[in-house]
Amino acid sequence: MSDQSTATAFVPGHVTGFFSAHRTGDPTTTGSRGGGLTLSDGVRVTVTPARTTRVDLDGRRTEMPPVERVVDAFETTATVVVDSDLPVGSGFGVSGAAALGTALASNTVFEGDRSENDLVELAHVAEVESGTGLGDVVSQARGGIPIRVEPGAPGHGVLDGVPTSARVEYLTFGELSTAEVIEGDTTRLSRAGERALSELRDRPTLPHLVRLSRRFAREAGLLVPEVETAIEAVSDAGGEAAMAMLGRSVFALGTGLSDAGYDPQVCETYPSGAHLCHP
Amino acid sequence: MSDQSTATAFVPGHVTGFFSAHRTGDPTTTGSRGGGLTLSDGVRVTVTPARTTRVDLDGRRTEMPPVERVVDAFETTATVVVDSDLPVGSGFGVSGAAALGTALASNTVFEGDRSENDLVELAHVAEVESGTGLGDVVSQARGGIPIRVEPGAPGHGVLDGVPTSARVEYLTFGELSTAEVIEGDTTRLSRAGERALSELRDRPTLPHLVRLSRRFAREAGLLVPEVETAIEAVSDAGGEAAMAMLGRSVFALGTGLSDAGYDPQVCETYPSGAHLCHP
Repeated sequence: MSDQSTATAFVPGHVTGFFSAHRTGDPTTTGSRGGGLTLSDGVRVTVTPARTTRVDLDGRRTEMPPVERVVDAFETTATVVVDSDLPVGSGFGVSGAAALGTALASNTVFEGDRSENDLVELAHVAEVESGTGLGDVVSQARGGIPIRVEPGAPGHGVLDGVPTSARVEYLTFGELSTAEVIEGDTTRLSRAGERALSELRDRPTLPHLVRLSRRFAREAGLLVPEVETAIEAVSDAGGEAAMAMLGRSVFALGTGLSDAGYDPQVCETYPSGAHLCHP
Repeated sequence: MSDQSTATAFVPGHVTGFFSAHRTGDPTTTGSRGGGLTLSDGVRVTVTPARTTRVDLDGRRTEMPPVERVVDAFETTATVVVDSDLPVGSGFGVSGAAALGTALASNTVFEGDRSENDLVELAHVAEVESGTGLGDVVSQARGGIPIRVEPGAPGHGVLDGVPTSARVEYLTFGELSTAEVIEGDTTRLSRAGERALSELRDRPTLPHLVRLSRRFAREAGLLVPEVETAIEAVSDAGGEAAMAMLGRSVFALGTGLSDAGYDPQVCETYPSGAHLCHP
């Protein structure tokens, strides 16, 4: 469908505020339920055919297993250049974004005939099999403020959304291992996540989502001290903040972190899902 | 969720290239299967509380039953100002866009607590009950190049997409009554639409979608002479064009209509679904 020798996709970032983990024997039905925000800060992924597969992240060669799995699924090799506005491993969905962007761009470059749902499934499966995430890919394919009502890839997962938009501020204090959390005992976490989801669906507004996320981090036992301090400072200044799952990161609505005296990154919720960029 | 006294939503236009009609006793499961394109030319809808409900379209008071049904569902009254880039009644989904934009903006202004899926359902039902469309609302809520795999509102309908973007040119020669077609005998039309859908799903690329749409218009017996002439002129110039369902309108990829000597409107496919505009 194209004679382009290279293609670029943009994928919004995604912070999960709360979630429950659902693992099955099948990566297409494995996933998470929960709530989060997609971000105008995101990831651009450029795919170019090459003799061997290599991944560059922000100018440096790196290993990104979900990206390599996606390229392998096209039975080919490519250079994948990932340019991220967001820190890696800090709860912003960079690995999911890189996988989804690679799927969209590869389908164009290698003249594939997959549909969008096929490509989302491919990236979701690559992310699940790599242990790097459960719900970012489907959220990033949707855009907006996604509510993951049922887990899994298209055809299994069900999504809804909070119908609004907002300025978002965020800060990171470092990485947290997604695999360690989601491959451990998720009973307590999932119980807290299911309760938050049920309450969000009763009143799907953005301040409610952030308040439920704040409670979730505490109940799930995931809150780290630096994030707790920042969330409290935002609350004291009259704002709404919560922890980005899974990272040592905090996000706030409006000018929440600025008002509390921090010097945050600033972006907005993103109305669109992942998409190819014009050549 | 807001103390705004007014809110504005943007909804992309939508041209259907081919479709099959599915009517049940329930407007949430009534809808269409098919393929089309959402457009960066669209509709802005501004809702302001008022003592009686009135609808203004491009500066003139008008009747828009789907819009009035949506306002009624909020059990309130409002002035709804619809500003359209696209001609009405010509196959660009203006009535669906107006209904969906009214739902999104009303939920903000009247501090509703509906989710995005709830609002899409509300607008879809209003459109079906008004006889003005079957598949535009769910497509416009999604954005991109939607494939309607299963008919109906969220929770029933299933959507996929063609993973690309394109420049789109279009022209209209006048209106065609949607109600007359979709409320008549749709057997022949639906048979042609189902066949096109099955072939598109086997190879979901944009030129294929337009070629299947061209065949559909002929097989369904919907092609009108002015549109046929334009489609042939585009084909002769090496381009891809088809008829916009349901209007006396033609759309083409890239510079198809310009290359054939027409002076068309120009826009692009739109990567995002309907969304609120920043205040």
